[in-house]
This record gives sequence, structure tokens and C-alpha cells, in this order.
Amino acid sequence: MSEPVVVVGGWASPFVTRVCIALRLKGVEYEFLQEAVGRKSELLLRSNPVYKKMPVLLHGGRPVCESLVILQYVDEAFSAAGKPILPADPYRRAVHRFWAEYADAKLHSPLRTLRGMVGGDKADAAEQVSAALRQLEEAFVECSGGKPYFGGDDVGFLDIVVGSYIGWFGAAERIAGLPVLDEARTPRLAAWAVRFCAHEAVGDLVPDAARLVEFGEVLRAALAANASSRP
Amino acid sequence: MSEPVVVVGGWASPFVTRVCIALRLKGVEYEFLQEAVGRKSELLLRSNPVYKKMPVLLHGGRPVCESLVILQYVDEAFSAAGKPILPADPYRRAVHRFWAEYADAKLHSPLRTLRGMVGGDKADAAEQVSAALRQLEEAFVECSGGKPYFGGDDVGFLDIVVGSYIGWFGAAERIAGLPVLDEARTPRLAAWAVRFCAHEAVGDLVPDAARLVEFGEVLRAALAANASSRP
Repeated sequence: MSEPVVVVGGWASPFVTRVCIALRLKGVEYEFLQEAVGRKSELLLRSNPVYKKMPVLLHGGRPVCESLVILQYVDEAFSAAGKPILPADPYRRAVHRFWAEYADAKLHSPLRTLRGMVGGDKADAAEQVSAALRQLEEAFVECSGGKPYFGGDDVGFLDIVVGSYIGWFGAAERIAGLPVLDEARTPRLAAWAVRFCAHEAVGDLVPDAARLVEFGEVLRAALAANASSRP
Repeated sequence: MSEPVVVVGGWASPFVTRVCIALRLKGVEYEFLQEAVGRKSELLLRSNPVYKKMPVLLHGGRPVCESLVILQYVDEAFSAAGKPILPADPYRRAVHRFWAEYADAKLHSPLRTLRGMVGGDKADAAEQVSAALRQLEEAFVECSGGKPYFGGDDVGFLDIVVGSYIGWFGAAERIAGLPVLDEARTPRLAAWAVRFCAHEAVGDLVPDAARLVEFGEVLRAALAANASSRP
């Protein structure tokens, strides 16, 4: 019998979303343990004592932390199952890893500003996201080689990493009232995002932008309540 | 004939050091192109247009950037050569990747403060490095399983990543006059560092602390001259 696979996280986190997409791409059944808003479970704290952050993947009870590490673990631990996540060619693997780190380094923080989760100038944050997306549009041309995905004929590592932000792009646009993933500036990425969300391994795993806007309100209220209840 | 391998970088950078150690571990011959202090070469700027940072590995003219990406590329592109860098087991690979990212996230910035390359409180920076090294001492116990290296019987990914800082630990101690890699607080790591530097693949690649102290003076002078020559 195969060892149980459990994802500890929240549906709204892009870092969690990408782990679920990878598991579905591999055809691995998993249990999803939803974390409550504003309160970390004992299981999360025990499984990721260094960062105390979601997602955690538990495989046969052993924890794997940090989403990019988890994606590679899923690819390697379930190598016989489903589709490969990273390309086979060493150079293409390096290019995917480079741009995946780039996406996380450049998108996450300004998207939080645009969504009002942290302070900062929103117009400035929108320009940072747009600049990163223009770079990623160039990366898309390089990686896809005229095919539909960063991974070529099918979604791969870099599709999953950038694709996990698509719901946040839409939520940031609505909350800040500023364009984010803009067809005029990054037409190839805009078309790719539509294709990605229609992929059978993705489906409902990329959260709906409207639902993320609502969730943001709940989260900000919880954070404010936490802050005001501190002595 | 095999394609030429070139490392573009500076001998004093831990990110460059680790690439050279990985290549030597694999038995791959390479040319080292030393960057001048305070001035980036055209080759570096052209090869890493996104970050404009060393190291760059050129393999058959194709650039690979970001040191952790390069280490994995070296392991995969030269898989038939020399010793493996990452462990074979997927779970151990994930654990090595997790701690490698941790080491870079926690060590680099406070070590720069201790070496006087950037501002900040030195006692505070020394405590940050010490806290990270105590975590890495626990990781060493977990990864080594009583064997000499993080990689077990031989040096591997995590040895190379943490080991590339050893010269900086010594330089930071001398410049700041504060203990960094301390036998009393992290006895296993202190003993491991001695073993690591004596390894045949490492040898003179970890820069001598005294030479790094001198280099720091040259670098600070160049940075000050650059700053004062700006209009």
C-alpha cells in the first residue's frame, strides 16, 4: 500500500495551490488539511518548526517544507506516476529553476501590497509586478519555443509556479483598481493564463479572483482583531 | 570533444566558491574568468542580464545563473562524471535543498554586516549568524547520521553550500572581533569545517580568512571611490 500524502495549508495561498496542482498532475491522491484563518495548527507548527509556514507536504508522516522544494520532491518521489514536472534536459531544468525563483522573488511582495495585506505604494507595486511579468513574457518565449506552455507541450514546473499566482493577479486588479496581467503589455502571458486555468490538472485549484477578494477582507479583519487583542 | 566550461566570478564570493568546488568534485575541467573589483565585465552583464551578478557558469557558451541552480545543473549535466552532489533519495534531496536555501537566507546578510560591507549592528548580526549555525548543527545531526559530512560518507550539496561560507566566518570573526563559528556553541559544525577544508575537492578553493580580510579593505576602498566619483 502506498504511504498517505497530506497537504497542510490554505486554499488561498499560491504556495499551497502549486503543491496541489503538482500532485494532481502526478495523479497522486492526497488529503487536504485546511488551516484556520489567523491560527496555526499544532501539526503545521510541529511539521515546519523553522519557518512555521504553509504549505507542508506530509508523505508517510515525513514533512517536506518550502513550496519549490516540495514541487521537486513530488516530481522525484512519484517519478513513475503521471507527467514529469521538470523538463528532462539539464539546461532546461536550470532555466525553469532560475525563473521560478525569479517569479517568487519579484511577484509575491508587491502582490501583497496591491491586495492591501501590507502597506506600501500601490502604483509602485503594480509597476513592479508589470516589470516582472514583462520579463516572464520573455522567459515564456524562450521556454515554450512556440508551444502552449512554459513546459512546452504540457504544463511543467514554471507553469505551476507562475500559474499559482493567477488568482492573485485578478484579486489585486480588483482591490487596487490597477491593471496587473495586462493583455496589452504581456499578450502571450495573458493568453497562457487562460490556457493554464483550463488545463485538466488545474481546474478549480487556482482560486477565483472574486473569492480571493472576499477572503482578503476576512483575513484583514482577523489580523486587525489579533493586533487589537494584544496587550 | 566536450564543450568548454567557464566560471565567471570572483575568488572571494562564497557563491562562486561553491560552483568551483562542485566542478572539482565532478572532475570537470574549467576556465576561471576573474572579475575585476568594482567593475562588471561585458561577459557577466550579457550572460546574466536579469541580476547582473556572479557567478555565471558558461557551458558550451550557454549561461547558467544563480549558484544553487548552477550546483544542480553541474550535478545533472555531468551526471556520469565524478561524485554525485545531491543524495539519490528524494526525501534526502528535499532536506538538502531546504537547508541550503535556509543557509543562504540566514547567513549572507549578517556576514556582510560583520565584515563591514554594509551597515547594521554587529553584535546583533553575530547573534543572527550564531542562531543560524545552531540550527544548521541540528541539521548536520539529521543529515549526516553520524557520518563525517552533511552528505554522509562524502561531501554533498549542503556541505558545499554551507562550506562556501567558512572563509567568511573567519574573516567576520577577525573584522568584528566577535565569535562566529564557535566550538563551544556548535562543536560538530566546527569539527566538520576543519574536515571540509581538508577534503581533496575543496583544498584552496575556500579562501583564507586573512586574505578575505585584506580583500575586504580593497573592496571597501573601491566602493568608497565609486561613491565619491558620482556626480
